[in-house]
Amino acid sequence: MAKDFPTRSENYSQWYNDLVIKADLAENSAVRGCMVIKPYGYAIWEKIQAVLDKKFKDTGHSNVYFPIFIPKSFFSKEASHVEGFAKECAVVTHYRLKNSPDGKGIIVDEDARLEEELIIRPTSETIIWDTYRNWIKSYRDLPLLYNQWANVVRWEMRTRLFLRTAEFLWQEGHTAHASREEAVKEAETMLGVYADFAENWMAIPVLKGVKSAGERFAGALETYAIEALMQDGKALQAGTSHFLGQNFAKAFDVKFLNRENQLEYVWASSWGVSTRLMGALVMAHSDDNGLVLPPKLAPIQVAIVPVFKNEEQLNLISRVVEPIKKALESRGVTVKYDDRDTHKPGWKFAEYEFKGVPLRITIGPRDVESNTVEVARRDTLEKETLQITDIEEKVVHLLDQIQKNLYDRALSFREQNTFSVNTWDEFVDTIENKGGFIYAHWDGTAETEEKIKEATKATIRIIPLNNMKEAGRCVFSGKPSEQRVIFARAY
Amino acid sequence: MAKDFPTRSENYSQWYNDLVIKADLAENSAVRGCMVIKPYGYAIWEKIQAVLDKKFKDTGHSNVYFPIFIPKSFFSKEASHVEGFAKECAVVTHYRLKNSPDGKGIIVDEDARLEEELIIRPTSETIIWDTYRNWIKSYRDLPLLYNQWANVVRWEMRTRLFLRTAEFLWQEGHTAHASREEAVKEAETMLGVYADFAENWMAIPVLKGVKSAGERFAGALETYAIEALMQDGKALQAGTSHFLGQNFAKAFDVKFLNRENQLEYVWASSWGVSTRLMGALVMAHSDDNGLVLPPKLAPIQVAIVPVFKNEEQLNLISRVVEPIKKALESRGVTVKYDDRDTHKPGWKFAEYEFKGVPLRITIGPRDVESNTVEVARRDTLEKETLQITDIEEKVVHLLDQIQKNLYDRALSFREQNTFSVNTWDEFVDTIENKGGFIYAHWDGTAETEEKIKEATKATIRIIPLNNMKEAGRCVFSGKPSEQRVIFARAY
Repeated sequence: MAKDFPTRSENYSQWYNDLVIKADLAENSAVRGCMVIKPYGYAIWEKIQAVLDKKFKDTGHSNVYFPIFIPKSFFSKEASHVEGFAKECAVVTHYRLKNSPDGKGIIVDEDARLEEELIIRPTSETIIWDTYRNWIKSYRDLPLLYNQWANVVRWEMRTRLFLRTAEFLWQEGHTAHASREEAVKEAETMLGVYADFAENWMAIPVLKGVKSAGERFAGALETYAIEALMQDGKALQAGTSHFLGQNFAKAFDVKFLNRENQLEYVWASSWGVSTRLMGALVMAHSDDNGLVLPPKLAPIQVAIVPVFKNEEQLNLISRVVEPIKKALESRGVTVKYDDRDTHKPGWKFAEYEFKGVPLRITIGPRDVESNTVEVARRDTLEKETLQITDIEEKVVHLLDQIQKNLYDRALSFREQNTFSVNTWDEFVDTIENKGGFIYAHWDGTAETEEKIKEATKATIRIIPLNNMKEAGRCVFSGKPSEQRVIFARAY
Repeated sequence: MAKDFPTRSENYSQWYNDLVIKADLAENSAVRGCMVIKPYGYAIWEKIQAVLDKKFKDTGHSNVYFPIFIPKSFFSKEASHVEGFAKECAVVTHYRLKNSPDGKGIIVDEDARLEEELIIRPTSETIIWDTYRNWIKSYRDLPLLYNQWANVVRWEMRTRLFLRTAEFLWQEGHTAHASREEAVKEAETMLGVYADFAENWMAIPVLKGVKSAGERFAGALETYAIEALMQDGKALQAGTSHFLGQNFAKAFDVKFLNRENQLEYVWASSWGVSTRLMGALVMAHSDDNGLVLPPKLAPIQVAIVPVFKNEEQLNLISRVVEPIKKALESRGVTVKYDDRDTHKPGWKFAEYEFKGVPLRITIGPRDVESNTVEVARRDTLEKETLQITDIEEKVVHLLDQIQKNLYDRALSFREQNTFSVNTWDEFVDTIENKGGFIYAHWDGTAETEEKIKEATKATIRIIPLNNMKEAGRCVFSGKPSEQRVIFARAY
C-alpha cells in the first residue's frame, strides 16, 4: 500500500491511474491495451455481475453464449455497423504455428491460413442475428430475451484501465420482438434497469436520455444512455440500450409469421454495460486518501482491526470479536477480521482506508473492558465509540447511511456542476473553466454538433427522456431550437 | 420437442449429438467448430459454475482476469508447452479492416499488421506467469491462489458439441507456492474438489489418478485427472490438475526470497474443468427418452402440469398449486408451473421428460377433490399418487432419492464395466467387445503405451492414486510390471 500519488486537484487523470493500480484493482498487461483485473478489482466486478444478472433474470431474460469469432462476411451485411467497427477489429487469419526453420522460436504457419478471416467480436449483433434466423419462425417464438456475459475486443489506440481497453468484459443483451413498440419498450426497460443499478447500487446519480444521431450505436435507430458526472466535471456514459428497428433482421433475413399470418421482419434491441463501470465507480466516489466504495458493492464491508501487544491480549479481543463477526455475517454483512501479527494496526488502518472499506472497527484491551469499539467511516473519515451491545444494528444502519451519503454527495456535486447557458461565450467559458453538464439549445443538425465538438471537445451526451420543450436559439448557430440538450466533455 | 432420434444401442454417437441439439442445450454455429450454448444448456452451466466457484472460494481462491491474447514470443519460452499447443492456435495478425477497393465488402487492412502476432489463449500459464513475476518478491507474497472463468480456443480439427470445440468455456486455476510440497498438495486438493463435484453434484462416479508421462499436460511434471465412464463404455476425462514444478517460473524468471533469504524459483500448479462437463453430464445419465438430469444441476427440478378443460378448472387447480409451489420454493426447490393453454398436457409431459426435469407433478380436477397429485420420476419413469398434505417433504425426499439413484446407477454401470485382464488376447477382446475400464499391467514405457494405442485405440487413462503394488507382466510386452494401470478408449 502506498500513498505516493497525486491528489485529484493536482492531476485528476494521474490520480485515477495510480489509484486503480495501487489499490490492486487492475494493471496493464504485457499485451498492448489489455488489462489484468486483479482479485480485489475482480471481486467488485463479481458483485456488479451478480446484481445485474439477477435484475436481468427478474425481467425475464436468460443467459446464452455465442462464439467469440465472427466471420468477416457477416460484418459487411449491416452497412452502418461495419462502418462503426471495422477500424478497430482484431482479425484472426491463421490457425497454427510452427517451429521457425532457423530454430529460433516459432512462426505463423502460412499453410494454415483461414479461408475467411475471423473477427474477434467487438459486439455480437451480427453472429446472433445470423443465428436467430433459425430460431424464429412465428410470433409464437417471440420474444427472445437473451443476454450473454462475455469478453469483447475493440482495438482502441489510446487505452486507460477500465475506461477504455482493447479487451473488456461486459454483458450484451440481444432481444427479438414481434413489434416496434415491444422492442422500444424493451430498450427503455433495460435503460431503467441500468439507471436503477447505477443509482441504488453504485450510488451514482445518472441522467437518462437518447443519443443524437451522430452518437448512436452503429446500426441503431435510437440509442438510450445513462450519463454520470465524474469529479473532474467530465461525463461518463455508464450504459446504453439500443432500439435496432429491423436493421439486423433485414441484414440477416430474419422474418416471422405474424398473427395475421404475414411474413414480417423481426424487431430488435440490444443493451450492454461493461467493466467501464469499474472506472465510473472509482472516479465517482474516491478521494485523495484512496478508494471509497459504496457498501453494496464493497468486497469487504467491515474490517475489524484488533490492537494488541501480546497473544494474551489478542485472545481476549478475539473472544469479543467472534460473536460480533458472526452476528454481522448473519445479517449479510461481509466482515474481515484482520488478526495478523505481521502488520501493525496503523498499517492496517491505512490499508483499509486506501482500499475503500466502508467501515473499520478497532478494538483494544481497554475497549474490551468498557464493552465498546471504535468505528470509523470511510466516506466521512469520522470516528465514534459505540457500545458492543447494539453494534450489529448500528453497523447495518451505518452501512445504509454510507450508501445514501455517497449517493447524496454525488448528486449534490452534479447539481452544483450542472449549468444552463444561453450564449456561445457562456458555453465556451463554462466548458473551459467549470466543466460539468451544460444544458443548451441546439439546432438539431449533425453539422453544428460536429463544430461544437471541434471547438470545445464537448459532445451532446443526451437529449433527456421526456425533455421539456422550450423554444430558443441554438447556442452555436443561432438557429431555432425547440429544446435544450445536455453537453459535456466526456470519457 | 422431437423424439425422432436414434436410441443409444442403435447409434450412441448420433444419439448424443441429436439429444444435445433437440433438448436445446447447444448447437453448431456459423463458425467452424464453435458452438452456441442455448438458454437451457447455459442454465446448467451456470449451476455448475456457481457450485464450483463456491468450492474454489471455500478453499481460499480468488478470481482474476487475464487478457485473452498471448504474445507469440511468450509461447516459445516453455519448450514442451509450445510443443503441445502450437498446432492448434488461433493467431491474430491484424487489427483493422477496410473497405475493399472494388467496393465489394471489406478486407483486412494490410497496413494494420501487428508487429508481433497474438495467440488467442488455449490456456493461460504463459501470460499469467509473465505477470506473476511482478507480483512475487518474497515468501510473504505466497501462495497466490487465483482462478479465472474464461473462454479459450484450441483449433481442433474434429469437433463435437461440448466434448471438443474450437472455443470452449472453462475455469483455470493458477497457483504459486513457496515449496514443492505445497504445490503438489494444491494440485491434489483441487483434484479432490473436482471429484467431489463430479460425484456429489453431477452424480458421476470418477476414478482419481495421475496420467502417464505421454498423457501429461504440456509443461507439467505431474497431471492428476478424474476419469468417468460413459454409457458406451468409453472413458471421459472430466477434470485435470497439474503440478508444474518450477517449469513456468524458470521460463518466465519468477523467483522469490525464501525464509532463508535465498532466491528460489516459485512452484506452480494449474487446474481446470470446462464445458466438456456438459457432455459428460448428458452422456452419463440420459436415456432413449431424452435427457436425464441430476436434481442438483437441473434448471427446473419440478414441473407442475395442470390438466384442465376450461378456465374454471384451471383456476380451481391453480389455487391448489400456488401454495405447493411456494412451499417447495421456500425449501430451495426450483419449480415451473406450466399453466399455458397453448399446449396440451400430453405435449408438456413429453417435453419435460425429454428435457430431463427430475420430477413432474400432474394435477387435475379429480386430484383437487381427493387432495392428491400424481408424481412422475424422470429417472425411473415411475408414477405414484401422493397426498398434497405432505407433498413438500415428499418432493424434497424424492429429489434426494433421484440424485442418489443416478449416482448408484452410474456406479453400478461402471462396476459392471470394469475388467481386470492378464493377457493381450483378453485385452484386445475386452476393448473390442466390451469396452469399459481395463486394469492391466504395463511395463511403464512410452513405447508400449504408444503401441497399445495404435493397436486398440485404448490409452492409459490413469495410474490410480495410492495404487496397489502388484508384481506382474506387461500385458503387451511381457516385461515386468509392478502395478496395474487403467486403460480405456476415451473421448
